Amino acid sequence: MAAACFRAGLRATATFSLFVRRLPPERGFLLAAGLEDVLQYLLALRFTPGALEWLASLGRFDGPFLDYLGSLRFTGQVRAMPEGTVVFAEEPLLEITAPLIEAQLVETAVINLIHLPTLIASKAARSVLAARGRPLAEFGLRRSHGTDAGMKAARAAWIAGFDSTSNVLAGKLEGIPLSGTMAHSYVSAFGDELESFRAYARTHPDACVLLLDTYDTVAAAHKAVQVARELAARGHRLAGVRLDSGDLDQLSREVRRVLDEGGAEYVPIVVSGGLDEHDVARLVSAGAPIDAFGLGTRIDTSADAPSLDLVYKLVRVDGRDVLKLSTGKESWVGPKAVHRVVGTDGGFTGDRLAAADEPVPHGAMTLLSPVMEGGELLRPHPALPEVRARAAAEVAALPEEVRRLSGPGEYRVEISPVLRARQAAARAKR
Amino acid sequence: MAAACFRAGLRATATFSLFVRRLPPERGFLLAAGLEDVLQYLLALRFTPGALEWLASLGRFDGPFLDYLGSLRFTGQVRAMPEGTVVFAEEPLLEITAPLIEAQLVETAVINLIHLPTLIASKAARSVLAARGRPLAEFGLRRSHGTDAGMKAARAAWIAGFDSTSNVLAGKLEGIPLSGTMAHSYVSAFGDELESFRAYARTHPDACVLLLDTYDTVAAAHKAVQVARELAARGHRLAGVRLDSGDLDQLSREVRRVLDEGGAEYVPIVVSGGLDEHDVARLVSAGAPIDAFGLGTRIDTSADAPSLDLVYKLVRVDGRDVLKLSTGKESWVGPKAVHRVVGTDGGFTGDRLAAADEPVPHGAMTLLSPVMEGGELLRPHPALPEVRARAAAEVAALPEEVRRLSGPGEYRVEISPVLRARQAAARAKR
Repeated sequence: MAAACFRAGLRATATFSLFVRRLPPERGFLLAAGLEDVLQYLLALRFTPGALEWLASLGRFDGPFLDYLGSLRFTGQVRAMPEGTVVFAEEPLLEITAPLIEAQLVETAVINLIHLPTLIASKAARSVLAARGRPLAEFGLRRSHGTDAGMKAARAAWIAGFDSTSNVLAGKLEGIPLSGTMAHSYVSAFGDELESFRAYARTHPDACVLLLDTYDTVAAAHKAVQVARELAARGHRLAGVRLDSGDLDQLSREVRRVLDEGGAEYVPIVVSGGLDEHDVARLVSAGAPIDAFGLGTRIDTSADAPSLDLVYKLVRVDGRDVLKLSTGKESWVGPKAVHRVVGTDGGFTGDRLAAADEPVPHGAMTLLSPVMEGGELLRPHPALPEVRARAAAEVAALPEEVRRLSGPGEYRVEISPVLRARQAAARAKR
Repeated sequence: MAAACFRAGLRATATFSLFVRRLPPERGFLLAAGLEDVLQYLLALRFTPGALEWLASLGRFDGPFLDYLGSLRFTGQVRAMPEGTVVFAEEPLLEITAPLIEAQLVETAVINLIHLPTLIASKAARSVLAARGRPLAEFGLRRSHGTDAGMKAARAAWIAGFDSTSNVLAGKLEGIPLSGTMAHSYVSAFGDELESFRAYARTHPDACVLLLDTYDTVAAAHKAVQVARELAARGHRLAGVRLDSGDLDQLSREVRRVLDEGGAEYVPIVVSGGLDEHDVARLVSAGAPIDAFGLGTRIDTSADAPSLDLVYKLVRVDGRDVLKLSTGKESWVGPKAVHRVVGTDGGFTGDRLAAADEPVPHGAMTLLSPVMEGGELLRPHPALPEVRARAAAEVAALPEEVRRLSGPGEYRVEISPVLRARQAAARAKR
């Protein structure tokens, strides 16, 4: 495409809009994430001599075009919602305005870099709602889709309100608090369960979370009481016990009783084992004495909805509003704004999808702002704790029914009259 | 765990087994992939000075343990099925035998590196069966879970029998044939659809696939006829047309008629647009005149089953068979072999999960063989076309009912009497 545009002399400025056409089933809202990676990508975009040489070897591209690619840098503008903003169907997460070829070449990367973080942050935010204040640990690296996905999932889950990750590299690179426990293989390797617990407690006296379900969970709880006493005698506290299989509601109650009767009432119970937000909600509603959850595969793969219908559409080129009419895929023309109306209590009462040049109504925020101009960042990326705080505030400001895990209410997004008029005008011109 | 084992003096040799506990719904078989990445990881495994410094800064690990990590290399043995082998529940894809800490430290990486390639190859193989010989292109990079996943999906889909990818870097690095077409934005940018087609044909006279559904598919088909004539006049052939939305069965018939009536009966029709193997099967069964499919998101995310219950379990340590009894998670003890019985027609008639030291029955193949000893590769990785050829032969050798897309028959995997006896002995010892 780029070669054809280059040869045809198409150098006009174009605007592309990145948005989700419809929310997955059961999702009342999405949480935008991934912008930092997109901006880093745009800053770094260039064709290396090796890449150019390989493209030349295909025999498909002429010299002038390859020279153009060699000098190509991203020189455009990016307007975007900050990471951690709640977003709904048809609302742009970002818009890129740049010379057509630049804006078009980055399509796959831009979608890819926003898709996964937004997918996982949105899934993880549901777990945070389900846990009602109980801490959550992200445990999913082993079954995330590759290593890059594992790093991005740890970051996205933390933005959404998870408290820690078991991904040590994410701790090192992103500063996310780490949490970890032992595996069944660790217990099995010792053969003697109590000895395996004691060895772990000796090495990690202040971070010892014992895994109880390798053989018999309740029997292991009695051994945990023993280890808790031994730790207490040396001035330490057992940091927790973990259940990873079986009927977690019933077992957590039995284990709580054993711990309490053994004087270890201060020891929290952590559960894990293929759980998702619905399992968390069910256990919390049942009043199971569970203090924290470890969530992995089903969060890191967004198991019930492993993709978003995220698209990057040309909406204006050379000053002309662009319309696409493909069946079921019509989208709104032109650069856009999202105006969010905030009630007197700080809650969000509805959004308005508008043309970018419309005035912001009184009492509304506008969600997209310029973050890159002329290919240069306008300001440093926000620190991750700031993004996490924004996400928490945004989710808290949603109407209660929009936050529901099942059958969420639909958040109101109206289309501005100006945008409707421009859409009609573009359609009339075809 | 490693620190606790180190401090407790646990240096015994351990064997871990990597297998899927149960197949996802609708999957009759899996296609093993990802071994090359695991072996490369094991060869490269080391803690860098920077990593050691950071671990030391956590204040959780003592000097002797950090020194041990600094000198740690993978020194063990790997027995594995070759990539492209069909595999079933409970059958090890690989087994690692190494000093306990080494074998345990690599758990997350080993699962992660096998999980995605096996997941995607297994999903893609179903699409290949559904297409009954029609070429498939992998189009999913934009919504794969990150960039690493996009690279791995292109490779896995090609192993499974896809014919090409739109992922240019996968073409460069893995030698996978590339295919690409234009996007709707390309057509929109020109405004005039015919001009956009002509510009593309001028630049790619021998690889021109025209996207027909930006405005009106049938009207665009007439323009494609025009471009085909213009190309033919210059000695080229229009390489194809693509439909990406709407009723693909009906539209493909209308477009075929327009092409045929316009003398472009040689131009193939490619369809795409959120399809999976069931859509492909339906369109093929309906007799829609579709020559090739572009499959993306639903293959690259394995949308109906985005994870496998892939686990890495300790099965022997210090010569002792290891048993784990967690509810619903019991697994077979000891290093294992998979014996596959081949009928006189070359078809697979059933497998036997056996102890690794059992003799291979007459007429059976044994599927795991040593690929690494003492941390060194025993032979170069097989070339990708070899892996792809193996996958095709393996899938073809399956009983027909096991290959069914919906409600597949269960492939017979029996447990050897020796393995059953060892399991009983291990249970009796607890």
